[in-house]
Amino acid sequence: MRPVAIIGAGMIPFGKLADQSLMQMLARAALAALDDAGRSESGADALFVANVGGGILQHRTAIASSLADLLALLPAAAELVENGPASGASAAKAGLLAVASGYYDSVLVVGGEKMHGSPTAQITDFIASMTHPHAEYPYGVTMTGMGGMYARLYMEKYNLSPTHLQAVSVKNHAMGALNPYAHFQLPIDPERIFDGPFAEINNPVLADPLRLYDLCPISDGAAALVLSTVEIAESLKKPYVLVSGFGQATDTHTLVQRDDPLDLKAVRLAARAAFDMARLSPADVDVAELHDAFTILEIAISEEVGFFEKGAGGDAVLDGKTCLGGQIPINISGGLKARGHPLGATGVAQLVEIVWQLRHELPPERQVENAQIGLTVNFGGFANNVLCFILKRVAP
Amino acid sequence: MRPVAIIGAGMIPFGKLADQSLMQMLARAALAALDDAGRSESGADALFVANVGGGILQHRTAIASSLADLLALLPAAAELVENGPASGASAAKAGLLAVASGYYDSVLVVGGEKMHGSPTAQITDFIASMTHPHAEYPYGVTMTGMGGMYARLYMEKYNLSPTHLQAVSVKNHAMGALNPYAHFQLPIDPERIFDGPFAEINNPVLADPLRLYDLCPISDGAAALVLSTVEIAESLKKPYVLVSGFGQATDTHTLVQRDDPLDLKAVRLAARAAFDMARLSPADVDVAELHDAFTILEIAISEEVGFFEKGAGGDAVLDGKTCLGGQIPINISGGLKARGHPLGATGVAQLVEIVWQLRHELPPERQVENAQIGLTVNFGGFANNVLCFILKRVAP
Repeated sequence: MRPVAIIGAGMIPFGKLADQSLMQMLARAALAALDDAGRSESGADALFVANVGGGILQHRTAIASSLADLLALLPAAAELVENGPASGASAAKAGLLAVASGYYDSVLVVGGEKMHGSPTAQITDFIASMTHPHAEYPYGVTMTGMGGMYARLYMEKYNLSPTHLQAVSVKNHAMGALNPYAHFQLPIDPERIFDGPFAEINNPVLADPLRLYDLCPISDGAAALVLSTVEIAESLKKPYVLVSGFGQATDTHTLVQRDDPLDLKAVRLAARAAFDMARLSPADVDVAELHDAFTILEIAISEEVGFFEKGAGGDAVLDGKTCLGGQIPINISGGLKARGHPLGATGVAQLVEIVWQLRHELPPERQVENAQIGLTVNFGGFANNVLCFILKRVAP
Repeated sequence: MRPVAIIGAGMIPFGKLADQSLMQMLARAALAALDDAGRSESGADALFVANVGGGILQHRTAIASSLADLLALLPAAAELVENGPASGASAAKAGLLAVASGYYDSVLVVGGEKMHGSPTAQITDFIASMTHPHAEYPYGVTMTGMGGMYARLYMEKYNLSPTHLQAVSVKNHAMGALNPYAHFQLPIDPERIFDGPFAEINNPVLADPLRLYDLCPISDGAAALVLSTVEIAESLKKPYVLVSGFGQATDTHTLVQRDDPLDLKAVRLAARAAFDMARLSPADVDVAELHDAFTILEIAISEEVGFFEKGAGGDAVLDGKTCLGGQIPINISGGLKARGHPLGATGVAQLVEIVWQLRHELPPERQVENAQIGLTVNFGGFANNVLCFILKRVAP
C-alpha cells in the first residue's frame, strides 16, 4: 500500500446548532480542514462525505455532489459513505484507500450530522433504524436500551459499581471543559449530579443501570480531514501525521446472536488488524479516542483494544490510568460523552483530535506530552461494524 | 495502481418485486455474483453496498453491516455508498480503489433499490430529494421535469424530431425483450404506441416533449460484482474482465448554473479520464451501457463520450449505428429504459452486462460478436456526478 498522510484537520464546535443547516456545517468543517492543509485554493481530487440521517431527518440524497459544488471543488469526485455511527471512520477509510490506490493524490473527508430539529422521539427512532429490522426494531429496541443491557451484564460479571461509570463521565466532562469544540464545556459537580438530594432528578435512570450522565448527548456537528500522498505532506515542511495502521471488522447484526454478548469481537479484530499493519502494540499508543457513546463502552473498548486486561478497565479509570498524564490518556477531547456524537461526524472528529495531539498543537492543559502514536475506535451499531485507525507523528 | 479484475457478476430480474425485501434482493444478487466467481465459500474481504432510498423509503440505516451478516461474510468490512442514481458505479469505484490499494484482495459490490411499495407521488418526491434544496426542490422540480426541459432545448438546437427519441425506445425495448433480467420484456409495437388512434393514451406526454415511452420505469432490483486482484483472476483459468479505465467528474448541482445547459461536461470529463487511464479511444469500444433514464440522454451521452459528433447522435440511432451489429452497440441489455432503473442497482447492472458481453456468454441474439472492450456511463443527478468505466476482456 502506498503510504497516506493526513495534512489537514478541522471541525466546527459541536452542539445544538439551530442556525446551521447540515450543508453549512459540512462546508465549514471542510473549509477549516482545507485551510489547515494550505489547500484553500487547490482543493482536493475527491470528496467523501460521512452522514447517516440526510435521508430520514433532512429528506435529502446526493449530498456529496451538492457539497462538491458548494465548496467549488468541481469536477472533483464525490460520494457519501454510510455506516451508522461509524460512518466517519468509514469515510476516512474510503479516503485512505483512495490515496493508497494511487488514483487520487489528495482527498477531502467530511463527516457531519444534523440531529436536532426533530422531536426527540423521532431522533431515537432514527437511531433505532440501524437495529435489526425483524429481530430488534419491531420490539422497540433502542441503542440506549442495548447499552443498558450490556452494562448490566458487564457490571455483574466484572463486579463494577456505578462509581466506575461515573469516573468515565467525570473525566470526559472535565476534558470537554477544556475543549472549545465540545458540546458540553462544563465539568461535572459530583455532589450535584451523583450524590446530592437531587441526584435522582439531575441524573435519572434512562436504561438501567445507565443514567443520563452515562450517555452521549444528541449533537449537531461536522469535522473534516485532508489526506494526501507523503510527497505532498513532505512538501509542506511541517509536522504531519501518517496513517500507520487500519483495521475493520463486522459482527452479527444483533447482540442476541453472539456466543457471549459481552465479547466485542469486532473491536478486538479491528484493533488487531490495525496493530498488525502498523507493526505496533497497545503499549506503543500515547493517546486514544474510543467510542464512549455509553460510559461502559469506553471501559469495554479500552480492554478489547488491549490497553487493559478484560475486566480491569473500570479500575484503570478510577486509578487515573486513562487521564491526561496517565498510562494511556483516553478521550482527552471529552469523547462522545462531552464533545458530543453527531453520528457521521464522530469518527472524523476522533481523527481530528488525534491529529491535533500528534502535531503538539493543543494548549498544555489538554496536550498529551510528546505524543507520537494515537489510536481511534469508531463503533457502528452495537459493535457490528468497527473501525480502528493508528496514526503516527512525522516531523521533518 | 495495482490492476483490478472483475471475476464475478450476477443480478436478479428487475421489475415490481412485491414479494422481496430490499435485503433479500441485495442478498440474492450478491450470492449470484459470489457463485459466478466461485467464491460461495470463501466470500470476500470487504463489501460495498450501493443504495439511495433505504432511509427515506425503507426507514433503514446501516444496511451494509446487516448484509455482511446475512451473507455470512463476517468479519468482512462493510459500507454503504450513496451517490444518487450513480450510486452503483460509485460502489464499484469503492471496490476498485479498495483492491487497487493493496489493502483488500477481493471485494463484493452490491447495488440495489426497492422503489415500489410507496405511492408514486412519494417515489417521485424521493427521487426529487437529490435536486437542489433551495434552487430546485421547493419549486417542485422533478428529474423528469428537468429531462423534459433538456430534451426541448436539445431537440431545438440539433433539429431532432420525436422519431429520433422513439428509435431509442424501440431499440431498447427490442433488446430488453431478449434479456430475461429486464423489467420490460416486450418489444414496442410502433403502430399502437406511436402512431395509432390510441397513441395519445398509450404514450401520454409526461414532461413535454418527453412521453411515457421516453422514460425509464420505476423498478426494484439488485446487481452485484466480485472484484479481485489479477492473481486471483488468473488462478480461475477462464476469461475474466480487467478494469482498464475509470473516470469521474462532478458539475454544478443545478442545471441553471451551467454556461450551456446542453453541455454534459461531467460526462465528457469522466469519459476522457477513463480513456486516458485505459490508453484507448472511443473507436476502440465494442459495446456500451449508457444511462438512458430518458431517451434523449442516451443520444446526448453517446456524443459526450465521443462515439458521435455533437448533434449526430440522434441520426446515428435512426441509422442503426447503435444497434447490435452496428458501429457501437448501445444498451444491448435494454438499458434503463427496458431493463429498469432501481437507482442503487443501475451502475452495477451496467457493469454486469458488460462483463457478460466481454466473456461472450450471452445468447447469440444479444451477444456483441467478439467484444473485447466495453464502456459504462452512470449518471448522477442531472449530470452533476458522472462515472465512466472501461472494461477489457482477458482470455487466458
